Amino acid sequence: MKPPSEVASLKPCVHGGEIFQVAEKYGLDPRELLDFSANINPLGPPPEALEAVKASLWEVSLYPETDSAALRRALAQHVGGLTSENVILGNGSTELIHLFAQVFLRKGSRAVIPSPTFGEYEAAVLKAGGKPVFVEAGEDFSFQVDKILGKVDSRTVMVFLCNPNNPTGALMPAEELISLIEKAEEKGILVFLDEDCMDFVEDGKRFSLSGNVEKHPNLFTLRSFTKFYGMPGLRIGYGFASKKIIEPMLGLKIPWNVNCLAQAAALQALKAQDYPRKTRELIQKERLFLMEELKGFNNLRVYPTEANFILIDIEGSGLTAAQLKEKMLRQGILIRDCSSFRGLSSRHVRVAVRSRRENLRLLEALRKVLKNP
Amino acid sequence: MKPPSEVASLKPCVHGGEIFQVAEKYGLDPRELLDFSANINPLGPPPEALEAVKASLWEVSLYPETDSAALRRALAQHVGGLTSENVILGNGSTELIHLFAQVFLRKGSRAVIPSPTFGEYEAAVLKAGGKPVFVEAGEDFSFQVDKILGKVDSRTVMVFLCNPNNPTGALMPAEELISLIEKAEEKGILVFLDEDCMDFVEDGKRFSLSGNVEKHPNLFTLRSFTKFYGMPGLRIGYGFASKKIIEPMLGLKIPWNVNCLAQAAALQALKAQDYPRKTRELIQKERLFLMEELKGFNNLRVYPTEANFILIDIEGSGLTAAQLKEKMLRQGILIRDCSSFRGLSSRHVRVAVRSRRENLRLLEALRKVLKNP
Repeated sequence: MKPPSEVASLKPCVHGGEIFQVAEKYGLDPRELLDFSANINPLGPPPEALEAVKASLWEVSLYPETDSAALRRALAQHVGGLTSENVILGNGSTELIHLFAQVFLRKGSRAVIPSPTFGEYEAAVLKAGGKPVFVEAGEDFSFQVDKILGKVDSRTVMVFLCNPNNPTGALMPAEELISLIEKAEEKGILVFLDEDCMDFVEDGKRFSLSGNVEKHPNLFTLRSFTKFYGMPGLRIGYGFASKKIIEPMLGLKIPWNVNCLAQAAALQALKAQDYPRKTRELIQKERLFLMEELKGFNNLRVYPTEANFILIDIEGSGLTAAQLKEKMLRQGILIRDCSSFRGLSSRHVRVAVRSRRENLRLLEALRKVLKNP
Repeated sequence: MKPPSEVASLKPCVHGGEIFQVAEKYGLDPRELLDFSANINPLGPPPEALEAVKASLWEVSLYPETDSAALRRALAQHVGGLTSENVILGNGSTELIHLFAQVFLRKGSRAVIPSPTFGEYEAAVLKAGGKPVFVEAGEDFSFQVDKILGKVDSRTVMVFLCNPNNPTGALMPAEELISLIEKAEEKGILVFLDEDCMDFVEDGKRFSLSGNVEKHPNLFTLRSFTKFYGMPGLRIGYGFASKKIIEPMLGLKIPWNVNCLAQAAALQALKAQDYPRKTRELIQKERLFLMEELKGFNNLRVYPTEANFILIDIEGSGLTAAQLKEKMLRQGILIRDCSSFRGLSSRHVRVAVRSRRENLRLLEALRKVLKNP
């Protein structure tokens, strides 16, 4: 009656944003904790999305649209040049990472994964019975196409990429990615491209390949409403690909996988006119501000980032990531201890880019804890 | 780049409650369609659950409690004698059916499934690479323990049961079930017991084994807020089992699988004092009323049921289930064509038990369509 040993040994991936657990542990109100550990839009969800939830409460007594036709159509139009057949929705983007691995991996087949990156790719590959093969990033955390392709062999079925990469913030140019995708296609290999934080990137449309999935039949791009639309509580991920990839995924997904209120909020969020521009302007300005300020710390090393988060090497502080996290929590601030990321260690933490007021609180707390003038 | 052939051949299971698709097809407002195809509480969700959703909108900007500690504790207390370690939450009960199969089935191992029953057990077994072995029900749609155990062999890993059984409404006595569970335990076989409609059953507590999971280490019982609490749109399933079953399931489930608003609604629904009693009284009364009225039709055969739905043989009407469904839709009523159920055919339809006003509308439409006086 036991699960197979390869299943029993699987452990859930570690994540940031664990605000409820931390609040309970430290006896705090979750509303009073400032969360820099998750890369969420500091503007909060568009108010019209929350209004849409209230207006949709009557739908609670009906099964949700299981094929989510309206939202899929809206997303296809939003990215442009696609139809709803190019779109799949997930219970958060994580469901789609796991579904992709489950559909396309055979037992023992291989998936190439950069390191460091988001931990759910590895978890999904292991769960599907596949074997992850890791590509280590360079000193500056950039990835070279040749180095990634060098890890591919006859057993490789898919390559995972995250652009901009979580937790480093490194951004790959579209041309390099397209070259990788085309070479992978020649070898019959799928490319899973996570663009979850792309909307935060300045001129992100130039870097995104979500509109190109019809041109690349081996490409799946992942997106969500979690970070950019500030709605992690609702769980709405989505992906774009050619019909040949989407169809078997739809065949294997569970029915009614996206809650009716989440669908209503997402549909309305897409109509929020000024929200994307305002978000990007805020994040650009605050990322530059925060980077400059953090560079002024004599015991921190800050990595370059194009995303809405910043990876920091804290070795010079003499603290471990766990110790710094603990000390910052006592200041009411949650940061991401990055030691759980393959390829990083206890000298790495990550902070999100938030509003000026919040960023100033972060800096003040860091100065206090790190004894910087 | 194709999925393995055994994956490519999988098709999603057919379900009732497809109110949005039907409304679009027939150009109707989904609020004007009367849904007898899904077995949902006609009282609608407890109003305090919807109030809890409104009060929890601030949580949308945070990741949900990924281990859902508060709701798991509340459910353990609700059933009594259990702790939160005996509870797992799912994105609807369907996620838990699929997760259970994924965790415990090895490729090629077997699962015994009654026929007819809910279609997701078979879908989950096939998706996990297992082989479903079917036990046909008797003429009255009852299941005998011996017949079920007769299908068990050395490759059998699990048995699925649904009590009361969907779509027949047949109820198995607790003593028979316990005997089956104990015999299965001796053989090292897991029993997955779906009690999703048990709360509607008169004296259901006497039939439920959810409180007994610590006594039976091979037993998993499935429940949800979907039907009894009238909240199919929110997607909240849950299951009870010993820690040895729950722990590997928690290890394999995706993080944040239950939306924050769904968790808030569920927590509050459990506190709705009069709602369970009112629901059971309504369903008992209306089931008897509807059964009597349907028996009066000269071209229908009604099967005995202890649940909140009724299976009907319409062969005498000269119509197929698809034809009757179509004709009823033109009367603004959606019923369940049961021909997609293994073991049933185009002569079977299912209707839910709803309020008196709605049941009268159903009967009126049936009289018109079936030309009964």
